[in-house]
Amino acid sequence: MIRVRYAELLDVLLASLLKLGFESERALRCAQLFAESSRDGVQSHGLNRFPLFVSMIQSGAVDIHAKPVLLASSGPMERWDGKLGPGNLNAWHCMGRAIALSREHGMGCVALANTNHWMRGGSYGWQAADAGVIGICWTNTLPNLPPWGASVPLLGNNPLVIAVPRPGGHVILDMAASQFSYGAISAYRARGELLPVEGGFDTKGRLTRDPAEIEKSQRPLPIGYWKGSGLALMLDLLAGVLSGGKTTHQIAPTPEREVGISQVFLAFNPDALNTGVSTSGSIGSQIANQVIENLHSGAKAAGESVRYPGEQVLRLRQENMEKGVPVDPAVWQLVQDI
Amino acid sequence: MIRVRYAELLDVLLASLLKLGFESERALRCAQLFAESSRDGVQSHGLNRFPLFVSMIQSGAVDIHAKPVLLASSGPMERWDGKLGPGNLNAWHCMGRAIALSREHGMGCVALANTNHWMRGGSYGWQAADAGVIGICWTNTLPNLPPWGASVPLLGNNPLVIAVPRPGGHVILDMAASQFSYGAISAYRARGELLPVEGGFDTKGRLTRDPAEIEKSQRPLPIGYWKGSGLALMLDLLAGVLSGGKTTHQIAPTPEREVGISQVFLAFNPDALNTGVSTSGSIGSQIANQVIENLHSGAKAAGESVRYPGEQVLRLRQENMEKGVPVDPAVWQLVQDI
Repeated sequence: MIRVRYAELLDVLLASLLKLGFESERALRCAQLFAESSRDGVQSHGLNRFPLFVSMIQSGAVDIHAKPVLLASSGPMERWDGKLGPGNLNAWHCMGRAIALSREHGMGCVALANTNHWMRGGSYGWQAADAGVIGICWTNTLPNLPPWGASVPLLGNNPLVIAVPRPGGHVILDMAASQFSYGAISAYRARGELLPVEGGFDTKGRLTRDPAEIEKSQRPLPIGYWKGSGLALMLDLLAGVLSGGKTTHQIAPTPEREVGISQVFLAFNPDALNTGVSTSGSIGSQIANQVIENLHSGAKAAGESVRYPGEQVLRLRQENMEKGVPVDPAVWQLVQDI
Repeated sequence: MIRVRYAELLDVLLASLLKLGFESERALRCAQLFAESSRDGVQSHGLNRFPLFVSMIQSGAVDIHAKPVLLASSGPMERWDGKLGPGNLNAWHCMGRAIALSREHGMGCVALANTNHWMRGGSYGWQAADAGVIGICWTNTLPNLPPWGASVPLLGNNPLVIAVPRPGGHVILDMAASQFSYGAISAYRARGELLPVEGGFDTKGRLTRDPAEIEKSQRPLPIGYWKGSGLALMLDLLAGVLSGGKTTHQIAPTPEREVGISQVFLAFNPDALNTGVSTSGSIGSQIANQVIENLHSGAKAAGESVRYPGEQVLRLRQENMEKGVPVDPAVWQLVQDI
């Protein structure tokens, strides 16, 4: 790992996207979403994912000129067609619509069909929380997770993002329905480490912490066994029914051809119900602050320490802005050469 | 276990509630919600929970005459005060409001403060799905779950319900954020069995399948370790911020005094976005059917079998309506004597 300044990372990504033919404003937003992921410590969906993104543009799987089109609207709900455009730009647009709908109606729901991988799901949680509203979003994915009771990947790991704005630091959960991603499993294997907890099955169908065994069996574990399996199925159903788009079983099972997926973006403006409140968002902020303070102080009283979802991101972001964003030198060279 | 006819179970529960002073219509709805839980195989929140419910009425923790009051409204969003009334009647009312809002606006969100235990959360998922809409709801609870990294119960197990209507059988997930409830853990211990997977920590802080050890340590495991811990926190935050009501750290840590909790009820009418569709719900139903068919056929092709969330309920419901609802003879006698 080497460190590069955030501005340099952004600049190189931006230059690549412009060379690929992106309009300048879309190139900047797209580059920011990639650079911010690396800056926030999510390298798997930042710079490290960029080469695959570029190859999917070159293969025609991602259409850089396609913009989402409104298909149907009903008060606080909208349905959009992503037209197979860049997944992060489509997702940013749709969370933006959900936020706008929540300002008008108190809440908004935008269902998006026919889109592409949104990269880091947490980006859209930060987007909502930075706008002062609650954001909830999820995506379906290619089939990569066997349901509980089966050995074949009939479900996606369907990441779910829940974001609650808080002045002292937003609380943002960004989790897939599998205990570990294939990326994380391969990183443990490369370091010669066992997983910290059981993360899948070996080829004989036994639960294991051995990452190489899970790569062999292709059987990662849903979070909470049968529970995460059920959750992944529900998120796929909701995304399909609300967007009218593809569900996991209709999505090609290879990352290079994972196109036309479905997503849902919800936003809630908590102030809409706080009638008579003069300071915007004060009641919701107070409640969120109390919950986080209690979490920290309760653990501290037991001589322990607990982090809330998103807490580490702020620390990493600060550190990486000061010291530079860690990048894989090989990937960094590859992207500079585009 | 003995079996009693559903009509008899309902009748005895209804008579008890009338004797306790419930208005007749509310007594019937409340009795139905308890009886249907036992009928659907969820005895822990059906007949078996009824004695605690009655004792909480007698202690004044639950006010049988209190009805929820609308506090604030903004288009598709409403906030209600449950006035410490019966939790299942409050929840039924609020999911009913969310369904009505979804018919008017496409979606609805009802946040409920100051309510009581809703008994079986799945009831309100079935309520939404039976009405032909998607239902999502969750509740916070007393502190009963240590967050990942700590040994003290700073989180609730905050059940989450997601329901998608489907003509061939609704798909309904009803899951708490802990891998096993204390009720389930104690049932395994009583049968002298180990848990099927690790379900908590022993008193030395090691993961264990031994139910007695988890009862000793009071450290059940969140689903997916750090992930379920994060999910439980988010559900509590959302319930508190949207309802303006109590969060888990403000709720008394004993079931007998678990009062004034917060809940959220969402409903989505998928037909609102299916413009030009003549048959109500046909596109959403088709998508849901395809997903479930693929789940079943995909597993079958591998010589395996997989159930969707809610699938077992329909079978049990049928069996218990035919053969009688299984009840614990001691609890049944107790309730008959009220």
